[in-house]
Amino acid sequence: MAGGDDLKLLGMWASPFVLRVKLALSLKGLSYEYVEEDLRNKSELLLKSNPVHNKVPVLIHDGKPVCESSVILQYIDEAFAGTGPPLLPADPYERAIARFWAAYIDDKMLAAWTQASRGKTEEDRAEGMKQSLATVETLEGALRDCGKGKPFFGGDNVGYVDVVLGGMLGWVRANEELQGAKPFDPERTPLLAAWADRFWSLEAVEPVMPDVSRLIEFGKARQAAAAAGAGN
Amino acid sequence: MAGGDDLKLLGMWASPFVLRVKLALSLKGLSYEYVEEDLRNKSELLLKSNPVHNKVPVLIHDGKPVCESSVILQYIDEAFAGTGPPLLPADPYERAIARFWAAYIDDKMLAAWTQASRGKTEEDRAEGMKQSLATVETLEGALRDCGKGKPFFGGDNVGYVDVVLGGMLGWVRANEELQGAKPFDPERTPLLAAWADRFWSLEAVEPVMPDVSRLIEFGKARQAAAAAGAGN
Repeated sequence: MAGGDDLKLLGMWASPFVLRVKLALSLKGLSYEYVEEDLRNKSELLLKSNPVHNKVPVLIHDGKPVCESSVILQYIDEAFAGTGPPLLPADPYERAIARFWAAYIDDKMLAAWTQASRGKTEEDRAEGMKQSLATVETLEGALRDCGKGKPFFGGDNVGYVDVVLGGMLGWVRANEELQGAKPFDPERTPLLAAWADRFWSLEAVEPVMPDVSRLIEFGKARQAAAAAGAGN
Repeated sequence: MAGGDDLKLLGMWASPFVLRVKLALSLKGLSYEYVEEDLRNKSELLLKSNPVHNKVPVLIHDGKPVCESSVILQYIDEAFAGTGPPLLPADPYERAIARFWAAYIDDKMLAAWTQASRGKTEEDRAEGMKQSLATVETLEGALRDCGKGKPFFGGDNVGYVDVVLGGMLGWVRANEELQGAKPFDPERTPLLAAWADRFWSLEAVEPVMPDVSRLIEFGKARQAAAAAGAGN
């Protein structure tokens, strides 16, 4: 990493948004101090660093906080442009395409996945699952058309969209057990299924990924808490 | 504009997202062909250019479509970096701050405003209005702290956040009549109120802004249609 840079990441181990930042830092080869937050008892540093949202992730670079995962990813790419591989391509049109799909994952895919796992009624959750599968199929098309046979959304190397989607992969695998759903199905979406395995096994990725069995325990505890809440 | 560039904007006159793109093109001094879409009968060109969302705005540059207003704004800034003033600053940290506030406007402020004007119940709409005022006050703080006495979010010149928020200004003024609300109130948020007047009267902005009385008519027709729908 660039000499003298002080990087601190405020995170929470199960957050897919925090994972995106860990992935970007790892891919860039940047070292940093990681601070795990207890979200039921947030630190003064978190509240001071992200007074608008009070949320993780926050990346603090030489004392200056950057918030919101998509903003942080682009910040890392721009502030450390000379360090490690770029996340976004150089060409303006290709950058726009990458930003489009990253926004699609955040706005459409995540909303559908949240509805599928936390919808209030069974009908809500079924509709969320249907929408989820539709968004995954759209993304399969993006990987086929934009990737043009390349192994990653970023082409021959991992890029911005890979990191944004890669942050979700722990939960994708946990939800195979929690919901009995396999969104990245080798039959229905073979490119994404192969992409997920390829991405996860990268040298800069695997050590950063969360323990899926721990995510499953976490998800079960959340489901139990939600069911208890619904019973009140 | 750069020689030989062919720019076409697919839009709809009342859309704040389309207005953002018009503002950016005007501020950059780029000429373009504007195509008004009938959203009840979308053109083949729109459906083909934005097959994922089927929405305006779409900017077509030399035959290649770019979708989603925030993606388009950054595309314009990057593809025409040598033309007109930049929208985003050069410094990575300042770019991150600008992206943070643009995302805040899209994710928090717009959601609250939509709830205030289209919430299903009166209670919903009242809660949306309360949230709206809170987001406007947060943004007043951003203009005070980030602007440091400068006239625009972008500093001495209009930038990315100004354009993103500026796209909303027509509806802000229309809603003063439609909802009896004045979100940019000179008493409560004097910096934003002054910013709105200053922004609107810029030479590159004023000719692009929509006719507020026409927006009011449009809003009334939509309210009437919603009321008729609710009565079914």
